[in-house]
Amino acid sequence: MSADEEKPSLPVSFEQLAELEDDFEQVDLEVTRHQDKLTKDLYVKREKIIANIPHFWNSVFEVAPEEFEHAFKETDGELLLSLKSLFVSRFDLPNGDPRSFSIKWEFEENEFFEDKVLEKKFIYRQSLKGDVSGLVSEAVKINWKPGKDLTNGLTDLVLKVEAEEKAGKGDEETEAKKELKKKIEDTPLGDLSFFTWFAFRGPRITEEEHKEALKKEEEKRQLRKAGKPVEDDEMEEDDEDEDDLFDKAYEYEPYPAADDQALCIAEDIWPDAIKLYLQSQEDDMLSDFEDLEDDDEDEDMEDSKAEPASKKRKA
Amino acid sequence: MSADEEKPSLPVSFEQLAELEDDFEQVDLEVTRHQDKLTKDLYVKREKIIANIPHFWNSVFEVAPEEFEHAFKETDGELLLSLKSLFVSRFDLPNGDPRSFSIKWEFEENEFFEDKVLEKKFIYRQSLKGDVSGLVSEAVKINWKPGKDLTNGLTDLVLKVEAEEKAGKGDEETEAKKELKKKIEDTPLGDLSFFTWFAFRGPRITEEEHKEALKKEEEKRQLRKAGKPVEDDEMEEDDEDEDDLFDKAYEYEPYPAADDQALCIAEDIWPDAIKLYLQSQEDDMLSDFEDLEDDDEDEDMEDSKAEPASKKRKA
Repeated sequence: MSADEEKPSLPVSFEQLAELEDDFEQVDLEVTRHQDKLTKDLYVKREKIIANIPHFWNSVFEVAPEEFEHAFKETDGELLLSLKSLFVSRFDLPNGDPRSFSIKWEFEENEFFEDKVLEKKFIYRQSLKGDVSGLVSEAVKINWKPGKDLTNGLTDLVLKVEAEEKAGKGDEETEAKKELKKKIEDTPLGDLSFFTWFAFRGPRITEEEHKEALKKEEEKRQLRKAGKPVEDDEMEEDDEDEDDLFDKAYEYEPYPAADDQALCIAEDIWPDAIKLYLQSQEDDMLSDFEDLEDDDEDEDMEDSKAEPASKKRKA
Repeated sequence: MSADEEKPSLPVSFEQLAELEDDFEQVDLEVTRHQDKLTKDLYVKREKIIANIPHFWNSVFEVAPEEFEHAFKETDGELLLSLKSLFVSRFDLPNGDPRSFSIKWEFEENEFFEDKVLEKKFIYRQSLKGDVSGLVSEAVKINWKPGKDLTNGLTDLVLKVEAEEKAGKGDEETEAKKELKKKIEDTPLGDLSFFTWFAFRGPRITEEEHKEALKKEEEKRQLRKAGKPVEDDEMEEDDEDEDDLFDKAYEYEPYPAADDQALCIAEDIWPDAIKLYLQSQEDDMLSDFEDLEDDDEDEDMEDSKAEPASKKRKA
């Protein structure tokens, strides 16, 4: 299944595809807006019901998609048992961008930190360089109890570097930066606590740059609609800019998977939470059952995970 | 991360969760309806542009999701090179069910079959047994050229069994059924052509049963809304009915993954086709580049697949 013969440049113009993709993107945004409006109250209602189920979110994360495989270390799991509520909201709606969202984690009193609520915002920003976008965030301060910092100082160091950048030392190689970089290098992935997620910052795209990029995009859109030629600034040098933008951010990012995990929460785990919870309960029951019947070889045991969810759809 | 202590029965009533899930499902349907309305014309426009790109869909399937891993055998690939167009439509909209859809495959003249168009419908049906739903389809006749049947008679046999069932011989153990069952058992997965996909039939849920099930569901919905108790018919014996419903269908189903693959086409491949095509071109370019630089060890080669798509979003 290969089409090696005809592959040179695209047989349709890049403009045509870009316009099409842009049209679809606009529709997607509109659909997300509509969906948010229709589901907002339902999620509030759901949260009230869920509040009566002990360890609901903990169970959900047990069967979360692959983005969360190996994400929770053993002590993370202990802390997660005190997670009382999780809430995703597209805070910029109804008038702003549906691609920005926040995830609010509510905890019971626990032995690890003082905080009752940790909220992290992911703001959609478009860059002027390389026509690239990303989710931008600020590091969230966690008030660890003495000796209980699961991130081993990583979150605090990121906060320090962030403060320095805000104070205009973005280009300086400060002590905190050096320390952070070394700590990132010295931390084995197997020791990295999930709670480092709260320190994620993402690419450095300011609100000003974002607005400028949106304006430029809208100008292009108007030119295209008018059938006029659009300046094509999408080529190789932009790819370099793009790599640069992300590499620079990731140098001081102890938890670079955070934005993908955040998207996974917002787009998969959050809407599917009840299904995932029921699946986790079914898995638990099955493994209890298997324990009971462990030495009964007549039984043809079926793993509930083996059957794809879409094959049997509960109405 | 285990909540073994509290697991017995659900701490909220099944009714509450069922009602909530039903509310969300209704919103989902409404959102799909809205989305279909907004994208319909765009997809037609896209198809016109795509028509100018040789082997577009072939390239898309090269980078399709895991549902299609190992799906295409070598000769399937040859045939797929003559695939000219693919079109998904939710034919039951605007007034009917957004969960039903059709996939229309258009082929150029080729050495394998006479057909120019193969269209397969997947109809959403709800069963009265076990509160289960599924995608129901009819086997599609492929007019193979002599000696060119890639499915080795499987599609024709399914058609024969289907005709017998329609003639009221559903419970008889006919010769065709025996032959089909044996052929299914004797065909190694590695030899199973993707084109057997067109023979998929799914669970036997009639339109009458479906309507009856919808009616029953609506009655339950009204009872719930009125705060009245709803008869709970969801327990173990239904799970058996449910297994029965699918097992019976799959006994004569040479290609049971067909509905999952159809959903994957309708929900992932179809909306993301341009992105997938661009990704396939990028992969090709990268592998050409790697061939060129094969013995240059200084180069730190990056695989475009290693970076999750969501990390860098082209605007």
